[in-house]
Amino acid sequence: MYPPELPRPIIDRLVEATLLEDLGRAGDITTQATIAPGMRARASFVARKPGTLAGIALAEAAFRIIGGRCRFDAKVADGSRITPGLVLAVAEGDARELLSAERTALNFLGRLSGVASITAQFADAISHTKARIVCTRKTTPGLRAVEKYAVRCGGGKNHRFGLDDAILIKDNHVAVSGGITAALKAAKAFAGHLVAIEIEVDSLDQLKEALSAGANAVLLDNMSIAELREAVAINQGRAVLEASGNVTLETVRAIAETGVDLISSGFITHSAPNLDIGLDIEVG
Amino acid sequence: MYPPELPRPIIDRLVEATLLEDLGRAGDITTQATIAPGMRARASFVARKPGTLAGIALAEAAFRIIGGRCRFDAKVADGSRITPGLVLAVAEGDARELLSAERTALNFLGRLSGVASITAQFADAISHTKARIVCTRKTTPGLRAVEKYAVRCGGGKNHRFGLDDAILIKDNHVAVSGGITAALKAAKAFAGHLVAIEIEVDSLDQLKEALSAGANAVLLDNMSIAELREAVAINQGRAVLEASGNVTLETVRAIAETGVDLISSGFITHSAPNLDIGLDIEVG
Amino acid sequence: MYPPELPRPIIDRLVEATLLEDLGRAGDITTQATIAPGMRARASFVARKPGTLAGIALAEAAFRIIGGRCRFDAKVADGSRITPGLVLAVAEGDARELLSAERTALNFLGRLSGVASITAQFADAISHTKARIVCTRKTTPGLRAVEKYAVRCGGGKNHRFGLDDAILIKDNHVAVSGGITAALKAAKAFAGHLVAIEIEVDSLDQLKEALSAGANAVLLDNMSIAELREAVAINQGRAVLEASGNVTLETVRAIAETGVDLISSGFITHSAPNLDIGLDIEVG
Amino acid sequence: MYPPELPRPIIDRLVEATLLEDLGRAGDITTQATIAPGMRARASFVARKPGTLAGIALAEAAFRIIGGRCRFDAKVADGSRITPGLVLAVAEGDARELLSAERTALNFLGRLSGVASITAQFADAISHTKARIVCTRKTTPGLRAVEKYAVRCGGGKNHRFGLDDAILIKDNHVAVSGGITAALKAAKAFAGHLVAIEIEVDSLDQLKEALSAGANAVLLDNMSIAELREAVAINQGRAVLEASGNVTLETVRAIAETGVDLISSGFITHSAPNLDIGLDIEVG
Amino acid sequence: MYPPELPRPIIDRLVEATLLEDLGRAGDITTQATIAPGMRARASFVARKPGTLAGIALAEAAFRIIGGRCRFDAKVADGSRITPGLVLAVAEGDARELLSAERTALNFLGRLSGVASITAQFADAISHTKARIVCTRKTTPGLRAVEKYAVRCGGGKNHRFGLDDAILIKDNHVAVSGGITAALKAAKAFAGHLVAIEIEVDSLDQLKEALSAGANAVLLDNMSIAELREAVAINQGRAVLEASGNVTLETVRAIAETGVDLISSGFITHSAPNLDIGLDIEVG
Amino acid sequence: MYPPELPRPIIDRLVEATLLEDLGRAGDITTQATIAPGMRARASFVARKPGTLAGIALAEAAFRIIGGRCRFDAKVADGSRITPGLVLAVAEGDARELLSAERTALNFLGRLSGVASITAQFADAISHTKARIVCTRKTTPGLRAVEKYAVRCGGGKNHRFGLDDAILIKDNHVAVSGGITAALKAAKAFAGHLVAIEIEVDSLDQLKEALSAGANAVLLDNMSIAELREAVAINQGRAVLEASGNVTLETVRAIAETGVDLISSGFITHSAPNLDIGLDIEVG
Repeated sequence: MYPPELPRPIIDRLVEATLLEDLGRAGDITTQATIAPGMRARASFVARKPGTLAGIALAEAAFRIIGGRCRFDAKVADGSRITPGLVLAVAEGDARELLSAERTALNFLGRLSGVASITAQFADAISHTKARIVCTRKTTPGLRAVEKYAVRCGGGKNHRFGLDDAILIKDNHVAVSGGITAALKAAKAFAGHLVAIEIEVDSLDQLKEALSAGANAVLLDNMSIAELREAVAINQGRAVLEASGNVTLETVRAIAETGVDLISSGFITHSAPNLDIGLDIEVG
Repeated sequence: MYPPELPRPIIDRLVEATLLEDLGRAGDITTQATIAPGMRARASFVARKPGTLAGIALAEAAFRIIGGRCRFDAKVADGSRITPGLVLAVAEGDARELLSAERTALNFLGRLSGVASITAQFADAISHTKARIVCTRKTTPGLRAVEKYAVRCGGGKNHRFGLDDAILIKDNHVAVSGGITAALKAAKAFAGHLVAIEIEVDSLDQLKEALSAGANAVLLDNMSIAELREAVAINQGRAVLEASGNVTLETVRAIAETGVDLISSGFITHSAPNLDIGLDIEVG
Repeated sequence: MYPPELPRPIIDRLVEATLLEDLGRAGDITTQATIAPGMRARASFVARKPGTLAGIALAEAAFRIIGGRCRFDAKVADGSRITPGLVLAVAEGDARELLSAERTALNFLGRLSGVASITAQFADAISHTKARIVCTRKTTPGLRAVEKYAVRCGGGKNHRFGLDDAILIKDNHVAVSGGITAALKAAKAFAGHLVAIEIEVDSLDQLKEALSAGANAVLLDNMSIAELREAVAINQGRAVLEASGNVTLETVRAIAETGVDLISSGFITHSAPNLDIGLDIEVG
Repeated sequence: MYPPELPRPIIDRLVEATLLEDLGRAGDITTQATIAPGMRARASFVARKPGTLAGIALAEAAFRIIGGRCRFDAKVADGSRITPGLVLAVAEGDARELLSAERTALNFLGRLSGVASITAQFADAISHTKARIVCTRKTTPGLRAVEKYAVRCGGGKNHRFGLDDAILIKDNHVAVSGGITAALKAAKAFAGHLVAIEIEVDSLDQLKEALSAGANAVLLDNMSIAELREAVAINQGRAVLEASGNVTLETVRAIAETGVDLISSGFITHSAPNLDIGLDIEVG
Repeated sequence: MYPPELPRPIIDRLVEATLLEDLGRAGDITTQATIAPGMRARASFVARKPGTLAGIALAEAAFRIIGGRCRFDAKVADGSRITPGLVLAVAEGDARELLSAERTALNFLGRLSGVASITAQFADAISHTKARIVCTRKTTPGLRAVEKYAVRCGGGKNHRFGLDDAILIKDNHVAVSGGITAALKAAKAFAGHLVAIEIEVDSLDQLKEALSAGANAVLLDNMSIAELREAVAINQGRAVLEASGNVTLETVRAIAETGVDLISSGFITHSAPNLDIGLDIEVG
Repeated sequence: MYPPELPRPIIDRLVEATLLEDLGRAGDITTQATIAPGMRARASFVARKPGTLAGIALAEAAFRIIGGRCRFDAKVADGSRITPGLVLAVAEGDARELLSAERTALNFLGRLSGVASITAQFADAISHTKARIVCTRKTTPGLRAVEKYAVRCGGGKNHRFGLDDAILIKDNHVAVSGGITAALKAAKAFAGHLVAIEIEVDSLDQLKEALSAGANAVLLDNMSIAELREAVAINQGRAVLEASGNVTLETVRAIAETGVDLISSGFITHSAPNLDIGLDIEVG
C-alpha cells in the first residue's frame, strides 16, 4: 500500500477558500500594523501531543497561496505516528505571509490529524483481528474529501464518499420499498457492474433474508456482541459484514473479535478532537 | 438579547455546496433504485442526547434546496436546551427528496449543536461569575460563520471572526515588532476608530507594560490561577482581561472566579463532539 | 426500475451557467430590440426525428431560471421513445423570456436526447442477449453527470462516473505496476469494501491471470469475436466480462452474442449526433 | 491570418473544472492503488485517424493544473492537418499525474479536434468558391468559447458567440414584432454602431423586403438551390447572404456554388464525432 | 425603442455577491442587536437630486435575495427623469431584512443612476444634432454589464462590451501591425460577418487611409473642432465617425455640431458621481 | 505606519474575474487579428494628472494572470504622490498579452488612484487638525476591499468594512428599538469585547443621551459648524466624534477645526473621479 494521496486541484481550491474566509475584506490587520515589510521569520510546526499526522500538503498550500514568499519543508509524511516535540514541518521566509497563513495551516493540520489520530487508535485496538475501521458520511460539511483522506492516513478504510458511489439500503429504504428482498432486487436491477450494494439489517432474520437475496455487504446495526457473533456464523463468509452502533474505544475490540469484517464509526469524523500542534516562531 | 441569527444568503450558499458534495455526479442512487417516485414520508428530528440546539435554519435550507417538495417545520428554536426524545423538527413530503437531504441536515445540526452544547456547558459552569466564554479562530475550515453562530447559540460570545476585524497582537507579533509598547503604538496608529486592539502577554510584567501602553484588552496566556488573580488586581478594571490556555470543564470555574472578563477556548469549536440527533422516518 | 433522475441542485447550477454563457454581458439584444415587453407567446418543442428523449428537466430549468414568467409543461417523460411530430413540451408566457431561453433548452435537449437515442439503438440491437451497453469516461467536459444520465434514459448502464468511484486497472497501470497479479493485489489492498475492481486485458492469457488473481470484472480490449467467445468460456461466470473496442451498430450484435455481460462504447457519449428537436412558436 | 488563439484565463478555469469533475472526492484511486509514488512515464498523443487538430493548449493545461510535475511538449499546432500515426504531443514526468490527467486532455483534444475536422471537411468541399462555413449557437453547454475556437481551427468562421454580440432576427421575432420592415427598423434603432444586424427570411419576397429595409446580412432558411441562386441574383452584393438548413457534406458544394457568402451548420458543433486520438505510454 | 433590460440571471448573481460582501461572516450585527425579530418597517427610496434612474431591478433583487420577507414596489421605471422628492420605490415588510439590504440596494441605485444621469446630461446637450453619446470599456471592474445598461437608461448607446465583440484597432495595434491599411486588411480577413471593424486615427491623412482601406467606423482621437469638421467633410458619410478625447459637458455640444456620428466618453462610466438617493424609513 | 497592503488571494481572484469579464468568449479579437504571435512590446504607465497612486499590485496581477509572458516593474509604490509625466510602472514582453491586459490594469489603477487622490485632497485640507477623513459603506459593489485599501493609500482611515465588523446604530435603528439608551444597552449586551459601538445622533440632546449611555463613538449627522463645536465641548473627550453630512473640499476644513475626531465621506468612494493614467507603448 502506498501512502494516501489527495489531488492537488482539490487541495488548492479548498485552501484558497479557507484563506479568503480568514482574510475577510481587510486582510491580516495585526500583521499589517505591527510587522515591517521585508521582515523574515521561521516557523516550526511541532507536535504537542502524540498522534497521527494528516494534512501536510494543505499546510504547504496555505503558504504557497498566501503569496509564495515562504519556503515550506515537510519533515514528516502524512500517516506517520508523531510524538510530542517532533518537528513536523518548517516554513521560512516573509514574516507577514508566514503570520497570515499559519492559522489556516494549523486548522487543517489540527482537524485532519485529529481525524487520523482517533482513527489510528481504533485501528490499533483491533489490529489483532481481521476487522478494519471504516468512516461514514457523517463528515464535516465541505470537508468530505479531506476527512476521508485523513481516515486513510490513520489506517482506516473509506466507506461511501457520497450518495452516488455505492448503494447503501438503510432501514428507511427497506420500509418504503417493501422489504429487504424487494429492495435488494430493485438495487441490483439499478446498479451498474461497479456499484456495490450493502443493506442495513436490525436482526438476524433480516440478515438471513439479505443473504438469500444476494447482498454484497450487510450493515449489522446496533447488534449485541452475541448477535454479531451469531451473524458471522450465519454469514459463513458470503457477504462483507459491517458492525455499526455503540462503537467506542472501549467496545471496539470486542466487536472486532466477533469476526465481522468492518466496524464503522461516525465518531472518527464528526467528533474527533483536534490534534494539538503548535507553532514555534523565530524572527530573522 | 434577541436570539442569534444567520443571514439567509450565507446559509443558502453553504447548504447548496454541501448538498452537491454529497450528491456527487449521480445523485442518491440508493433512493433512485429503491424508492418509487411520488412516495411520501415524514421525518422527525429527535434529540438523542441532552444539549443545546443550533443549525435549524440550515436543516430547513437542505430540504428547500434539494427540490422543495418537503415542508419543514421547526419545533424548537436555536439556542434552546434540548432533552432526549424531544422532537426538534419535522420534514414531510416527497420521500426521495427527504431521504436525499436528511444526512446534510443532520450533519449541520449535529456539528453546530455540538458546538452550542459544549459552549453551553462552559457557560453554565461560570454563570455565577461575570466571566464569559469566547471562541477563537480555531474553527473548521469553511465553517467560520456558522460555528461562531453556534457559539452564540450556546451562550458564548464571539472573539474575532477573522484576521481583519480586530487587532490581536500575539507573542510572535510582539517579538518581531520590538516589544509590547512598540507593537501597541503601531497598532493604535494603524487602527480605525472601530477596530479594537488586544495584546497577548505571558507574564504580569508584560501585563503592566500593556496596560501602560493603553491596551483595550489583554490576553493572559497560560497563566496559573494565582497569576490570573494577580492580573485582575493589577488591571483594576482598565482593560478587558481574557484568560487563555488549559481551559477545560474542570478548570474553567476556577479561572472564572479569578475575576477575568473572558475565557477563550479553541476546544469549543475545533474539538466539540457532535450532538447526537436522530431521525425517525414514517412512510406514507 | 424507476425512471432515471437527476438531482435538482445539479440541474440548476448547470443550467444557470449555460444561460449566462449565452446571455453574455448585454443579454438577448435581438429580443430587447424587437419584442415589446409584455408580449406573450407559446412554444412547442416538437420531435423532428425519431429517438429517445432526455433532458426535459433541464429545459424546464432554463425557463425558470431566465426569470420564471413562462409556464413549462412536459408532455413526455425522459426515456420515452419519440417520433417525428410528437409534442414533447410546451412553454407559455412572457415572449421575451421564452425567446431568450429556448436555445439553451434546445441545446440540452438535443445533446442529451442524442446520447439517449444512440444508446437506445445499441440497446435495441442487443436486447435479445443478456449483454448491456455501458458508457465510459469519454464524456463531454462539464457534462459528465448529465450525459451519464442520458445513457440511463436510453437504456444503457453507467460505468465509472470518475476516477474516484471504482478501480479500473488499464494496460498502462499494469505495465507500471509490474503485471496483472501485482496490480490486482495492490488494488485489493487499497480498495474499500464498496469499491469494485476491474482490469483490462489484451489476451486470453491475461484473462486467465486476472481471473486467478480474483478480478471482479475484466475489460476485454479489442478482442475478436472468436476471442470473446473463448473468453466467455474461460470465465465460466466468475467475473463480469466487458467487451471494448470496435463497437459499432454493425458489430455490437455479434459481440453481444458471444455471451459477454457488458459492451462499452465511448461513441455513445463523445460522438452521439444531436437529436433534431424543433420549436414551433405561436404569438399571443 | 494568424493562428487562432484562446485566452489563458478561459483555458485554465475550464480545465480546472473538468479535472475536478473527473477527480471527484477521492481522486484517481486506480493510480493511487497501483502506481508507486515517484515513478516516471512518457506519454505520446498519437493521431489514429486523419483530421484537423484543436485543443492542444487545453491538454497542456491539464498536466499543469493536475500538479505540474509533467513536462508537456506540443509537436503539432492547432489547425494543422494530421494523419494517422503522427505524434501530436508528448507529456513526460510523474507517472501518477500523467495517468490522472490524460483522460481530461484526451476528452478536450478529441472533442475539439472533432469539431475542427468536420469543419475542415466542409471548408475543403467549398474551397473553390467564395463561400465560407460558419457555426451557430448550437454548441455544447459550457463549451461555447472553445468549440467556436475549434471551428476557427478547422478553417470556418464564427457566427454570433451569444445572444448579446449581434442581432439575429429570426422568424419568431419577425412574427411577434410585426414583420420584416418593422423588426429591422426596431433593430437599427436599438443597435450600437458595432452591432451588426442579420435577419432570417423564408422566401424571396421576404428577402426583397429585408434588402429594402437595409439588412446587413440575410439568413436564407431552408431554400432550394434554385431559390438560393435567385436570392444571390436579387441581392446584387448588397447584403451578406447566409444559407442555412439541410447542409451536409453532400449538399454543401452545390449550396456554395449558388454564390452565397456563408453556409451555416449546427452539425459541425452539435454533432461532430470525436476525432480518434490515442495515447501511447512508456514507463520509466 | 423599448426600455433597456437586464437579464435576470446576471442581476441575481451580482446582487447575491454584493450582499455577501456586505454581510461578511457575522451578518448585520447592528440589526441583530437592536431590532426585535418580527418588527415591520416601510422604506421609501426618494430622489434627493434631479437625474435619471437606473438599477431598480437590482434594488428589487437585494430585498428578494436577503430573504424575501419584504415586498418591493417600484414606482418609477429605469430611464425616467427624476426630481428631488420623488418616491422611486417602496420596500415594506420585515424590518431586519429591510435594514440589512438597503445599503446594497442604494449602492446599486446610486452608482447606476449616477451613470445614467451624467449620460443623460451629455445626451441632452447634443440632442439637436444627430450625434449620440457612447460609452467605452473604461468601466468599473465587475460592473461592465450593468454600467453599460445604465448608459442605455441615460439615452446613450453602447460601444464594445469587451475585447471580443467587435474589432477596435487602436494606435498601438496600428504601430505593431505595420500601418492602417495592413491592420484593416488583417482585421477583415479575421472578422466574421457580424463583427464590425473600427480603427483609431490621429490625423486626417490617417482618416483618408482608413477610408480607402474600407473601415466601417473610424475613431477620431483628440482632434480639434476644425479637424473634426474637416473629417466629416472628407468622410462623406462612408464610415461611422466617432470623436474621442477632451469630451466634457462644456465641449460636447461643439463636437456634436461638427457632424460626427458618435462621441465617446470614459467619463460617463469611470467618473460619474453617484446620484443622491435617500431612504426614508417608517416603523411599524 | 507601514504602507497599506492587500492580500494576494483577494487580488488574484478579483483580477481574474475582471479579465474574464473583458475577454468574454472570444478573447481579444483585435489583437488576434492584427498582432503577430511572438511580437514584443513595452508599455509605460504614465501619470497624466497629479494625484495619489493606488492599485499597482492589481496591475501586476493583470499581466501575470493573462498569461505571464510580460515582466511588470512597478516604479512607484501605492500611496505615493504622483505628478504628470511620472512613469508609474513598465510592462514588457509579449505584445499580445500586453495589449489584452492593459485596459484591466488601467481600470483598476484609474479607479483606485481616483479614490486615493480625492482622499488625499481631503486629508491635506485637514492635516493641520487632529481630524481624520474616513470612508463609509457607500462603496462600489464588489470593490469594497480594494476601495477601502485605496482610502488608506490616500491617507484616510477606514470605517466599517461591512455590516458585521462593528455596530453602527443609525437613526432607523434608534427609532425601531425604542430610543438611544435602549439601543445602546442592547448593543452592549450583544457585542463581543472587540466590537466597537457607534451611534448616530441628530441633535445635541441625543448626543448627551448617547454619552450618558456610554457610546464609544458618536456620529454627528448633518450638524452645523456651531453645533459640531458645541458637541466637542459637551463630549469632553469621552467618545470618538465623527462628523457626517455636507462634507466637501470646501467645508471639510471648517468641520475639522471644530475639534471632531473623524469626518466621514461617501463621496471619496462613490463619486471619486478616475485618476487619468495613460499608457505609452513602444514596439519591439
